[in-house]
Amino acid sequence: MGSFVNSCVRIIKADSIVLLAVAATAFGLSAVARSQGQKPAVFFAGQLSDAVELRDLALSSADAFRHVASLTMEVGPRLAGTPGDKAAVAWALSTMRELGLQNVRAEDVTVPHWERGDIEVRITMPYPQTLAATALGGSIGTPAGGIEAPVIRVADLDELSSIPAAEVAGKIVFFDRRMQASKDGADYTLTVKARREGPAKAAAKGAIAVIVRSVGTSSARLPHTGKTTYDDAIRRIPAAAISNADADMLAMQLARGEAVTVRITMDARYLEDERSANVIGEIRGASRPDEIVLLAAHLDSWDLGTGAIDNAAGVGIVLETAVQIIRSGKKPARTIRVLLAANEEFGVSGGKAYAEKYMADLHNHVVGMEADFGDGKVWRFSTLFPDDRLEVARALHAPLEPLGIEMGDNKTGNGADLSEFKKLGMPVISLGQDGADYFDYHHAASDTLDKVDPDNLRQVVAAFVTTTWLAASGDTDFGFRDPEEETKP
Amino acid sequence: MGSFVNSCVRIIKADSIVLLAVAATAFGLSAVARSQGQKPAVFFAGQLSDAVELRDLALSSADAFRHVASLTMEVGPRLAGTPGDKAAVAWALSTMRELGLQNVRAEDVTVPHWERGDIEVRITMPYPQTLAATALGGSIGTPAGGIEAPVIRVADLDELSSIPAAEVAGKIVFFDRRMQASKDGADYTLTVKARREGPAKAAAKGAIAVIVRSVGTSSARLPHTGKTTYDDAIRRIPAAAISNADADMLAMQLARGEAVTVRITMDARYLEDERSANVIGEIRGASRPDEIVLLAAHLDSWDLGTGAIDNAAGVGIVLETAVQIIRSGKKPARTIRVLLAANEEFGVSGGKAYAEKYMADLHNHVVGMEADFGDGKVWRFSTLFPDDRLEVARALHAPLEPLGIEMGDNKTGNGADLSEFKKLGMPVISLGQDGADYFDYHHAASDTLDKVDPDNLRQVVAAFVTTTWLAASGDTDFGFRDPEEETKP
Repeated sequence: MGSFVNSCVRIIKADSIVLLAVAATAFGLSAVARSQGQKPAVFFAGQLSDAVELRDLALSSADAFRHVASLTMEVGPRLAGTPGDKAAVAWALSTMRELGLQNVRAEDVTVPHWERGDIEVRITMPYPQTLAATALGGSIGTPAGGIEAPVIRVADLDELSSIPAAEVAGKIVFFDRRMQASKDGADYTLTVKARREGPAKAAAKGAIAVIVRSVGTSSARLPHTGKTTYDDAIRRIPAAAISNADADMLAMQLARGEAVTVRITMDARYLEDERSANVIGEIRGASRPDEIVLLAAHLDSWDLGTGAIDNAAGVGIVLETAVQIIRSGKKPARTIRVLLAANEEFGVSGGKAYAEKYMADLHNHVVGMEADFGDGKVWRFSTLFPDDRLEVARALHAPLEPLGIEMGDNKTGNGADLSEFKKLGMPVISLGQDGADYFDYHHAASDTLDKVDPDNLRQVVAAFVTTTWLAASGDTDFGFRDPEEETKP
Repeated sequence: MGSFVNSCVRIIKADSIVLLAVAATAFGLSAVARSQGQKPAVFFAGQLSDAVELRDLALSSADAFRHVASLTMEVGPRLAGTPGDKAAVAWALSTMRELGLQNVRAEDVTVPHWERGDIEVRITMPYPQTLAATALGGSIGTPAGGIEAPVIRVADLDELSSIPAAEVAGKIVFFDRRMQASKDGADYTLTVKARREGPAKAAAKGAIAVIVRSVGTSSARLPHTGKTTYDDAIRRIPAAAISNADADMLAMQLARGEAVTVRITMDARYLEDERSANVIGEIRGASRPDEIVLLAAHLDSWDLGTGAIDNAAGVGIVLETAVQIIRSGKKPARTIRVLLAANEEFGVSGGKAYAEKYMADLHNHVVGMEADFGDGKVWRFSTLFPDDRLEVARALHAPLEPLGIEMGDNKTGNGADLSEFKKLGMPVISLGQDGADYFDYHHAASDTLDKVDPDNLRQVVAAFVTTTWLAASGDTDFGFRDPEEETKP
């Protein structure tokens, strides 16, 4: 691949109409103008050659890893509301300034402050065993002496809904669905439902606590946390995750057919709300500064690991994307805005606050991208564009092909921190990363720097910088979606 | 392989001189007699055909996994001196009786009782971070308030020995050698030296505590414990292991060149000695009952996991080997003795007690084998035989070849629970298992049932039953080694 990329770069640098046509053919581009001066269908040829140049420089020299190392080592865990979260905001401000971003600022965000506390989950009958467990984010604690009750196992919410409340009342509900690993992490969406909604749904049937098999794909004996959401109308009950190995243990004891009881003791609790911040830095646009290409990554992390893959990697990717453009000396027409968002994990506070603050600017947001899927290489380019702008999507994808990136669909659901503006019609690009091992570490203590591959990140930054440059360097019209139209049956 | 094995079995069952010669050739056996009646060089042909029959039955039907599941689920962690250890002895007695072993008995062993307690290891400067840590087995605790000191990093004992005591005094020594995974686990022997001897050696230079990078090959953020041994002449200092990811963190902070301080708070301690037991069961020999083929596996485990690979797997292997022979209805000439030894992990108490009790019988121990390397398939057959008995080794190996087992050397060092008699000259056979992932879980919380592959265990039992039958069913002379001769330069 390397030599193919290089030969393309050389061809494009020659800047002749004939050679550019060859390059355009090599990229499969019908939408690229045949010379610099001509009005392009999507991009000026100069935009494309600059993007390819930036791409290949990034491939050989981008160093997102240093940002990941710095954030995980110097700050470490940074759950919303904790001192680590405040340290992360300070880190982001000074790092952005050091890297040469403009208009660097912290914008206040109020965040919840939940404390995990200690936990003990123990099978007390028939075969006593201590289980590796952790509180689900937002869970209440138990009384000091803990609670002990028989366990009822269900695979998922569907199975729970099929069981009469009388069989659930007074019990601990054990959600036992094992997540399957895959490149796109598709099974997460299915498996995480029980973690998110299970405690509320189980409480509605009279359960007194919930245990979920960790939404994770590792055999390491470490539980994976993540937010659960109670229903205000229903009594809150304690909720914990246990590791896959411990879920096996519990399931095996249950499979014997005897009554299995578990004791849960945990002191998770909410404290007062705290102040945090979205940290923003920009490369101001030279000719269209009010038009914004938004690169988002959340700055916060869960508290169990150091938040390396989730999401120091994403922070490193968007910061290094900006660095690559700044270093090149090239000036984008539009403003490239890097948003390091507060508290994604525990309620997307930063994403919501950003949307509120910049609502008047909504339609100036040309397109949004987010990095929040670890360190895997980008393998698929997807979009959420107006249907009449698919030509733009194809033109954006073409120079990514030499990076091994395939063309996805126009239905991406990615981008938690973009979700408010996305709902209102902002076009979104998703550079889908390979997440085959992402859920081995996601939301668990194992989410540490050693899981991050510097070489992978170079490819990811190469993809981000290519796409960012094409979006920001010209006047390409990405359109604006009509969400009402999209949701019509 | 399956069909080759089956065809050999069929040929041998035909029991004709000509066909047996074909089978013997297929096995590459020069040492096998050409008919049942003839005096063999090593084994009677009937021994070989029975061994092959047992081997192939085991390959298709041995179920060592059920013993592993039962011990890990019904007993779980069983560190010497704990209630789990006593429960394991009771489990072993009832399981052996249920499986039809003879002369089932528990033989008293006094064991130390050490308690891990809680631990907190935290970098306090320059970048505060909490490290995933656990006490090394046998470590003393710290004062209640913990101890805090600068850290000095060394790769290993050699590097420590090269540093003046003045540079070590008052510091916490960090042994930072990363173990490399391999099939034979050879790097364990090199890496474990710092865990075993490091605290004593560091204390001799005035260190106040020791941290070792876990002797383990996983990236899971879980520390691996294991015994450390103090020097009675030198002050004892607290010693802990941290996970690989945390060792990376500590090393990275140290690499910045600034002073790094760590606070260790741990309350590990010794309690009163406790009673435990070696559990023994036999298949009594029909014609040479006083001659013993010894199959050993330690019954105890560390406390962090449920001791599945270390060593419920070994327990399952030797128990199922006995089961396969009992079920076949075949009667061995010699006694097959299964020894489930007490407290291997924390001082080989059971192995030593066995040797003491049976010292008068030393020379009746024809040969010893041990299972203590997890669930990997057997890939190498090694021995520690008198040099004039290598023909026996080759003859034992021949029927293992179809299992994919290669011939190793005559210098095996395996067999902790056999080590007392081995030192005195007892011949030893090692069925070397594939340990490429063994040290991902060894002595860590991840040592749980999900790491054990039932299919692998079938192959291991097939190898054990083949070798055990050949050793126990005839009168083959394994000789007895002369340890003094062996240690001459």
